[in-house]
Amino acid sequence: MLEKFLETVKKHNMIKKGEGIVVGVSGGPDSISLLHLLWRIKEEYNLSLYAVHLNHQFRGKEADEDADYVEKFCENLGIKSFIFSENVAEYSKKKGVTFEEAGREIRYRLFESVMKKMKAHKIAVAQNMDDQAETVLMRLIRGTGIEGLSAIDYVRDNKIIRPLLDIKRYEIEDYCEKNNLMPRIDKTNLEALYTRNRIRLELIPYIEKHFNVNIKQTLSRTANIIREDKEFINISVQKVYKKIVKKTESEIKIYKEEFEKSHIAIKKRILREAIRELSGDLKNIQNKHIQNLIDLIKDGQVGGEAYLPKGLCAILDYDVIIIRKGKREIEKYDFEYNINIGETLNIKELDACFISNIINVKDLQKINKESYKTYFDLDKLKKGMILRTRREGDRFTPFGMKGSKKLKDFFIDAKIPREERDKIPLVCDGEEIMWIIGHRISEKYKVDQNTKNVLVLTYKKNQ
Amino acid sequence: MLEKFLETVKKHNMIKKGEGIVVGVSGGPDSISLLHLLWRIKEEYNLSLYAVHLNHQFRGKEADEDADYVEKFCENLGIKSFIFSENVAEYSKKKGVTFEEAGREIRYRLFESVMKKMKAHKIAVAQNMDDQAETVLMRLIRGTGIEGLSAIDYVRDNKIIRPLLDIKRYEIEDYCEKNNLMPRIDKTNLEALYTRNRIRLELIPYIEKHFNVNIKQTLSRTANIIREDKEFINISVQKVYKKIVKKTESEIKIYKEEFEKSHIAIKKRILREAIRELSGDLKNIQNKHIQNLIDLIKDGQVGGEAYLPKGLCAILDYDVIIIRKGKREIEKYDFEYNINIGETLNIKELDACFISNIINVKDLQKINKESYKTYFDLDKLKKGMILRTRREGDRFTPFGMKGSKKLKDFFIDAKIPREERDKIPLVCDGEEIMWIIGHRISEKYKVDQNTKNVLVLTYKKNQ
Repeated sequence: MLEKFLETVKKHNMIKKGEGIVVGVSGGPDSISLLHLLWRIKEEYNLSLYAVHLNHQFRGKEADEDADYVEKFCENLGIKSFIFSENVAEYSKKKGVTFEEAGREIRYRLFESVMKKMKAHKIAVAQNMDDQAETVLMRLIRGTGIEGLSAIDYVRDNKIIRPLLDIKRYEIEDYCEKNNLMPRIDKTNLEALYTRNRIRLELIPYIEKHFNVNIKQTLSRTANIIREDKEFINISVQKVYKKIVKKTESEIKIYKEEFEKSHIAIKKRILREAIRELSGDLKNIQNKHIQNLIDLIKDGQVGGEAYLPKGLCAILDYDVIIIRKGKREIEKYDFEYNINIGETLNIKELDACFISNIINVKDLQKINKESYKTYFDLDKLKKGMILRTRREGDRFTPFGMKGSKKLKDFFIDAKIPREERDKIPLVCDGEEIMWIIGHRISEKYKVDQNTKNVLVLTYKKNQ
Repeated sequence: MLEKFLETVKKHNMIKKGEGIVVGVSGGPDSISLLHLLWRIKEEYNLSLYAVHLNHQFRGKEADEDADYVEKFCENLGIKSFIFSENVAEYSKKKGVTFEEAGREIRYRLFESVMKKMKAHKIAVAQNMDDQAETVLMRLIRGTGIEGLSAIDYVRDNKIIRPLLDIKRYEIEDYCEKNNLMPRIDKTNLEALYTRNRIRLELIPYIEKHFNVNIKQTLSRTANIIREDKEFINISVQKVYKKIVKKTESEIKIYKEEFEKSHIAIKKRILREAIRELSGDLKNIQNKHIQNLIDLIKDGQVGGEAYLPKGLCAILDYDVIIIRKGKREIEKYDFEYNINIGETLNIKELDACFISNIINVKDLQKINKESYKTYFDLDKLKKGMILRTRREGDRFTPFGMKGSKKLKDFFIDAKIPREERDKIPLVCDGEEIMWIIGHRISEKYKVDQNTKNVLVLTYKKNQ
């Protein structure tokens, strides 16, 4: 295992002699092995190691024990450790991000601060080949391009390194056992609890059994091949971008003639990059927005406009396209999200979030039913859940009724004004409406005397 | 549906007015809908339509009925039809390709001949969005890059068109019903019978239920996005290729200095393209062979050589790398293939093929056991099957014995000469050896009184 680890380190030029390395250590098998391996090459590479642990304050005593374990483990190896403690759940609520995103943000902030303080050079984190394979599958299932499929980088910005990315989880577990490291149970599976765990525990074993025993290596290799292509395309984009894009404080100009000469794959990325440069990130920017811009530039009249999320607009001028922070915000209420149980979903159009959980029917009495919090019989769900606005032809079977009616008629009967109807989010099981949020649940999904697993759904306006 | 079909046709500029179109018609819902849709726009577009059907001679009477049905269907619509009949199974054996590959080769040959004869312009085939999604998943599972993930093209060489690629299978079935087309049961599922059917019937429904109801659209969109990137990269490769590659009859020269300036993603494709140009195709060329060449060019001494499959070799000269048909063939006996039940596997290293089938235990007496044909209890398999050469540390539990022994010892006891041992293919269930082909099966997988499903494996030297 040490050889495999060193091979990865050398192949990707991860570590230079004499460097200081901040190591993220949860206390699980991955990060403990990583720290142990780095410690073994400490002398040869003349490294300074700093372990950083974050107590997520999530499972009270257990989390404290994790922190104690990491502290002692480091003490035994003579590695300086930094143990932090923050209320990640609270932070996640405040920022409207998932628990795992919150944890990641806080951890990387801490890594950076320790790196600065100790004048270190690198941050080492412990993702392994299983994580890589799961990430590829997860992104493919959610929808992605080559950016997503190239998954986890070995080295990012010549700073963050992942030396375990070619090593499988079971090899790491073996390593811990052989070296008697006694790691804590890994709790890194918090992200997309439902999705990632299902991929790990069901989907990958299923593919291994029926299609390809080596699926993890296969996916890891695919990510590596695609990463090269991604790099090449990004370099090509940067070359063109520098030539044809000019930024001032409040707007970006793209020179049309040169733009039109570029390949569509490059055009789309130039527009994305321009939006990112202007507004800081690409949140809420979808492929269809970019396609609108492409169409505007191709067929549009001088003076033509297109509106983008984040209050941006694009104006077609004679020889340039201008993207600027516009005044009109004309987001249409027309959205559709997949719901992953256990994850917080942000509904940016409504400045709200949506939470789903599963509980045992025995715990049902503990839940208060409210307009924006309700429950269903999980086992009555047939497809996957989506959250979307209404559509032509929608039908609904209101709680307490037998037959279905047109959703439109339901709205009329409920005296909901026309201009409000587009803003009411609907939770659906495939095509079937389960819940008109804030109004009524469907008869078809109600909890009854046979219910075993209860799906609890909560909708919350952000403060 | 007609609108959706026309949208795809227009978006990809598939058909011009006045063109002649050869339509591949199996008689299944997809191809019958395609023909019907083309017939509906025949007048508006002033099209000449030619239906081509191939009787595969696979299921005797049924296949004849398919052909009759297609002929009558065309007669009713006033479309000229060409009905061919060929023994695809025989062709497949002769050429050592799968049944589906054989069918495809023959069909496209027939399409081309009809196109030429009738002076037509396009060949229309009937893949749908489900086929697209299945192809993306299948390729991802087997291992691929962006070439594979961009999956099925809408238009190929401005000749082959696929106007149903944005339409889902159930929409096509609805269309057939509404228009009373009465298609034959689709038998297009012959390719990778086991793999593709499992993806269609198990894997996609599972993903729809647990992860993403819209997985088919998601995968189709991903393929479309990646296809743009693939095109851009290919164009970039062609530009460099023209500049730095020179071909004579028996060898290809690549100018080193310019080659070294290219990005790794481009380098790899230039080498592949050179090999393809020299030897006609890229069969048996793996990523590792290309990597060997990259390493040779980067670090190699002038005069250094690398050997490739297909009897090719590469020689490093002062300012060029030369790829030519070499004399020495030094294929090492070190291979590993995944076995997909129901597919013929070609073991190129041994010039042999390998066939796997499942039968009911009741039919066991019909099978003759031979050195190169044997059977196992299917339900004792735990992982996926692979076929590979021996490896350090292999162990084996010979039929009739209780404990396991080193494979090496088995070979010694069986008096198999050292130089033969690398050439003996092993069938494994994950890590566990099931069959030392030509010698012995494993006790652990034998058929016993509880066996229900029998796995029949056959190994054949090509003539």
